[in-house]
Amino acid sequence: MCELLGMSANVPTDICFSLTGLVQRGGKTGPHKDGWGIGFYEGKGLRIFHDPEPGIESKIAAFVRKLPIKSEIVISHIRKANRGKVELKNTHPFVREFWGSYWTFAHNGQFKKIKTEPLGDFRPVGTTDSEYAFCWLLGKLKKKFKESPQPESKLFETLEILMTELHQKGVSNILLSDSKHLYTFCSTKLSWITRKSPFGKATLLDADLSIDFRKVTTPGDRVTVIATNPLTSNEEWNLYKPGQFQVWKKGQIVFSNE
Amino acid sequence: MCELLGMSANVPTDICFSLTGLVQRGGKTGPHKDGWGIGFYEGKGLRIFHDPEPGIESKIAAFVRKLPIKSEIVISHIRKANRGKVELKNTHPFVREFWGSYWTFAHNGQFKKIKTEPLGDFRPVGTTDSEYAFCWLLGKLKKKFKESPQPESKLFETLEILMTELHQKGVSNILLSDSKHLYTFCSTKLSWITRKSPFGKATLLDADLSIDFRKVTTPGDRVTVIATNPLTSNEEWNLYKPGQFQVWKKGQIVFSNE
Repeated sequence: MCELLGMSANVPTDICFSLTGLVQRGGKTGPHKDGWGIGFYEGKGLRIFHDPEPGIESKIAAFVRKLPIKSEIVISHIRKANRGKVELKNTHPFVREFWGSYWTFAHNGQFKKIKTEPLGDFRPVGTTDSEYAFCWLLGKLKKKFKESPQPESKLFETLEILMTELHQKGVSNILLSDSKHLYTFCSTKLSWITRKSPFGKATLLDADLSIDFRKVTTPGDRVTVIATNPLTSNEEWNLYKPGQFQVWKKGQIVFSNE
Repeated sequence: MCELLGMSANVPTDICFSLTGLVQRGGKTGPHKDGWGIGFYEGKGLRIFHDPEPGIESKIAAFVRKLPIKSEIVISHIRKANRGKVELKNTHPFVREFWGSYWTFAHNGQFKKIKTEPLGDFRPVGTTDSEYAFCWLLGKLKKKFKESPQPESKLFETLEILMTELHQKGVSNILLSDSKHLYTFCSTKLSWITRKSPFGKATLLDADLSIDFRKVTTPGDRVTVIATNPLTSNEEWNLYKPGQFQVWKKGQIVFSNE
């Protein structure tokens, strides 16, 4: 299995604190040592870092987690390989251009027989179930909508149906983004926390590190962090229910099937 | 205008030396201060770094040029913006998945009316002529060949035709890769050098740095570096002719229209 980390914020925000917690689980406090990756959106632009090295040993991870890249949407993943070798091409998040935007996808879980499903216009480069599922999902979307549909709720409803279908094929906790929204699906395990005024202090579960958010925020900031397992010891995280699909924009839920 | 840097090698090789020369031109010895980017192939996998900061000031560039990433194909670009704002989404190299491989594209030059050309299945995310031309080219390829054609010469001949067509629409020096080959087209300016046994010393034109390749190679190594302008002062670089298209594999030319 793997661990996921996502962020949706209403102001460009760095994820150094949460990422420091996550990468500990990449070989130190957790067994997810088969690579890691992270994508940062800046408007429609995307920076993406991938490394098949364990997060805890990766020079790139050490560099990135100190790099204060400010973003409104982030998707990160640390990998414990079950299907697909430990190789760069099998490292999440996966990226495709679709409708003139970069879509990124990170997945925790595995599918039984996903590779027998016919694909549309998108092809996997690597050998993971996860990338195959991403290509399947985008192919289905493209077949249904030639252009990004309006109103947006049409897209949300279709994604809910497709992600529920994936959930029925196996364990499928998903973070997906198109640079505008962060789409999240819980198959078995996912948690979230929204930090907003009044801000407080937080302490990582996996490293001896605390932060006082009062010192690094302004009163209007709203930052939601989504993770497989809570990252801090002294805050109250919310748990997703199995089958729950939530769409985040600027740190707030804009669509939910609850 | 911009500057390009490419590498094709028969053994995984780092590009730290050449990249150190190139990034000087990103605001120090050259005016290309509107961002830079680099893609490294590892088999079918791809690491890609983008930054809209000037190469010479970029923390990411400083980190990457010391990171001994070993690759058989590299494409890099430093940008002097003429069309499209200085933004992450407008930073080369651009990437698309096509036929189950990651294709990367970097371009030096500009087109007169490329954006009136109809596109196929690929859409630009940013606003540059260059990304538009890349999408146009892949769209044409996809329309002609549903799968990667055999023998490979069919693909080379089609790429030659498409790149010549781009050359007729403006200045179009191009580096393109599909993880197997490095496709290069010279519209106005491009140069190359192949380093192989017996290896010698090289000194950068843009920085006070020399390397003795005898100390970092084995006798069978063959490494070709392609750049807009030669990067070293004491080696003899070959100049492409306008209209010249060359396909590189493992440091050797496998197709040429000369």
